[in-house]
Amino acid sequence: MQERLTQLSCDDFASKLAAKESVPGGGGAAALAGALGAALGSMVGNFTIGKKKYADVQDDIERMCASAEGIRIRLLDLVQKDAEAFEPLSRAYGIPKEDPMRAQVLEEATLAACQAPLEMMRAICEAIDLLEEMGRKGSRMLLSDVGCGAYLCAAALQAASLNIFVNTATLANRETAQRLDCEVDSMLASYVPLANDVAAQVEAAIRRD
Amino acid sequence: MQERLTQLSCDDFASKLAAKESVPGGGGAAALAGALGAALGSMVGNFTIGKKKYADVQDDIERMCASAEGIRIRLLDLVQKDAEAFEPLSRAYGIPKEDPMRAQVLEEATLAACQAPLEMMRAICEAIDLLEEMGRKGSRMLLSDVGCGAYLCAAALQAASLNIFVNTATLANRETAQRLDCEVDSMLASYVPLANDVAAQVEAAIRRD
Repeated sequence: MQERLTQLSCDDFASKLAAKESVPGGGGAAALAGALGAALGSMVGNFTIGKKKYADVQDDIERMCASAEGIRIRLLDLVQKDAEAFEPLSRAYGIPKEDPMRAQVLEEATLAACQAPLEMMRAICEAIDLLEEMGRKGSRMLLSDVGCGAYLCAAALQAASLNIFVNTATLANRETAQRLDCEVDSMLASYVPLANDVAAQVEAAIRRD
Repeated sequence: MQERLTQLSCDDFASKLAAKESVPGGGGAAALAGALGAALGSMVGNFTIGKKKYADVQDDIERMCASAEGIRIRLLDLVQKDAEAFEPLSRAYGIPKEDPMRAQVLEEATLAACQAPLEMMRAICEAIDLLEEMGRKGSRMLLSDVGCGAYLCAAALQAASLNIFVNTATLANRETAQRLDCEVDSMLASYVPLANDVAAQVEAAIRRD
């Protein structure tokens, strides 16, 4: 895997996602959607910086912008990391069933394939916290973008979780599987409602009857 | 607006989304996320075609693949269309308040800016219908990708809706505004729960306790 997938154009990435190729797949799409959500948080911050009306939250906004940029870059890197975990897993599934090493190699590759989506989820939770704060402190002119970012991050978090569940289901070590599922469930339980609340508050604020 | 935004690399698109530039914004991010969701539907179909086990649904899968490809391309085109509606709107806001033509120009530009997100929503609803059918008929090996696609489409639909609400709120013609909001609410009410049901069924099917 030499080519960095996120260096593909959006058109080509979407086309490669649609093709009969295993990567990019749902995990890469989740990471990219999360990166878009984090980017929207940055945009709101970047339009807020320097505005007199928001002078008293300037330091907070600058901190959030720096943080959102880091999250965006981590998520774009995770598109690649997720893809790179697929090849060893695919190779492990290809080991003949009678090979005594198959189970162990498959177990290790499956566990390794959980890492990128797990890191995505942690980064997306940080992005959701940022969007929540940006919704309170950022420019009201860009409130709809905060809501869009929150919706995209909620979906990215849920999509990443499926990429963990599908792998933990096949782990022989059930203790490890349950520990992973538990962390995933905990992030979903806290952050999907938070992201949806942020977006619902945006909708209520921008709508007119 | 010469450059096609989706010809930017994913890295650059995300970077431009984060920047202090009005386009791409939440609408463009919504369309791209919807395109990723539709692409995942295609991927599942493309891996299902030609498999003996799914021979009896081959025709349905082929129809769905063709349809999903059309939806993906429409959504990628809408990233651009959404961006192109912004400039006239921004120019209209710049017209001096005392100019007697300001209200009419602004009203028309605002209404025009609703069109791309409305077309996105219609395309994303079609994508969700497809993902629902793909979840029933497509290869079980790629079920998690159906779920990822459904989550991304639900978020894209909701994000696109905010880009309509933020514009209909400022329309002077309240009858038109309410007609648009009504169509948006109707799509949200039918398709967000459908997409979430598809994803929840995927999660239930792939998880192991």
